[in-house]
Amino acid sequence: MPLPVSRTVILSPLSLLPRDLVTRDRRLPVVLLGERSAKGSTDHVGIDNVLAAREATEHLLARGRRRIAVIGGALRGRQGTDRLRTDGYREALKAVGLPFDAHLVVAVEAFHWQDGLRAATALMAREHRPDALLCLNDHLALGALRALHEQGRSVPEDLDVVGFDDIEASRFSVPSLTTVAPDKQEIARVAVSLLLERIDDPDATAVHDHVARHRIIVRESTGG
Amino acid sequence: MPLPVSRTVILSPLSLLPRDLVTRDRRLPVVLLGERSAKGSTDHVGIDNVLAAREATEHLLARGRRRIAVIGGALRGRQGTDRLRTDGYREALKAVGLPFDAHLVVAVEAFHWQDGLRAATALMAREHRPDALLCLNDHLALGALRALHEQGRSVPEDLDVVGFDDIEASRFSVPSLTTVAPDKQEIARVAVSLLLERIDDPDATAVHDHVARHRIIVRESTGG
Repeated sequence: MPLPVSRTVILSPLSLLPRDLVTRDRRLPVVLLGERSAKGSTDHVGIDNVLAAREATEHLLARGRRRIAVIGGALRGRQGTDRLRTDGYREALKAVGLPFDAHLVVAVEAFHWQDGLRAATALMAREHRPDALLCLNDHLALGALRALHEQGRSVPEDLDVVGFDDIEASRFSVPSLTTVAPDKQEIARVAVSLLLERIDDPDATAVHDHVARHRIIVRESTGG
Repeated sequence: MPLPVSRTVILSPLSLLPRDLVTRDRRLPVVLLGERSAKGSTDHVGIDNVLAAREATEHLLARGRRRIAVIGGALRGRQGTDRLRTDGYREALKAVGLPFDAHLVVAVEAFHWQDGLRAATALMAREHRPDALLCLNDHLALGALRALHEQGRSVPEDLDVVGFDDIEASRFSVPSLTTVAPDKQEIARVAVSLLLERIDDPDATAVHDHVARHRIIVRESTGG
């Protein structure tokens, strides 16, 4: 105390602007987790978002779901996690010859429980309701579960719900939540290792982009 | 960046030992939130834990509950939040002439979802089951809700469940969770104000102990 913050920063870049990274002191060691910087100028550790979303969608398709909504999805943007995961969803539909319906991709203001509840409520008020919700993080999915409960819909009897992240709450919700689990041990290990490399050699120019493992954990919300 | 950590520390003292506070540089401004230091030598902001637990217990008693278990409770310790809340529970029983049963106070290893699930599962395996669970934080309560679901018990039809803290998950769980909500705005405002006073006058000797407001938010887990 005080901690040597200037030598051990790991940033979750959701609230960072690209210029914050471009204009930073180049000798300040930084590793990005999750979201990637637009310029690829910073070490990064994350999962293969396209593949992960494709596999999650394939899981829903294999259960017979055909009108899969994406809560938190995005059709624009180049590098954002939301865009990459939406791309993976589209790939899965295409592979089985299902048409893509842009109306099933629902943007959210933020990725919190309340946003998932609102989005799911709006989707269920439509004439053509979805039969599954692919939620781009667990908070959205848990909010969606609450919305479905309030509307008297049973999960997974009436609809399936999937999240991303495998946060602690997803194991304990009612029903428990199927989710895409990044290998957090691997992410932590590689991120610290990359930071230590930067600290040892602040002038190194090579940029690392590590793709960590992920797996789909099937729980009650998709019949597990 | 780097942040001026040495001038703005607010510590949640659960992982601090009393000697960490006693031996710290006295000019380092510190305000404790929640848990109090044993020696009362540090500025502190928290709620009236005895009163809050008493009111939560009275809420359960008013609903006709008579075998109320305390998950995370403690009969020893002088200043701990767990001890103070258990005292409040005992006061409420005494006020209505109900005998205190030490077997209904269940210690936990930590205050996480998993610990609440384990404690509730063990309580429900007893011959004389409780008819309500007073859980000393929301994580314990949410884990307990999951345990009751797994055992086919309905909340609040078969049992009531109450938590403390009003974390975001408690609004969205199924059923939603009745909880003791500290006034977080007040806690944040007073804590920052006390810190600023310490920074302005590092040699001040008066120690502040601010009691913030709280209220019980009645949700589905107790019939709300």
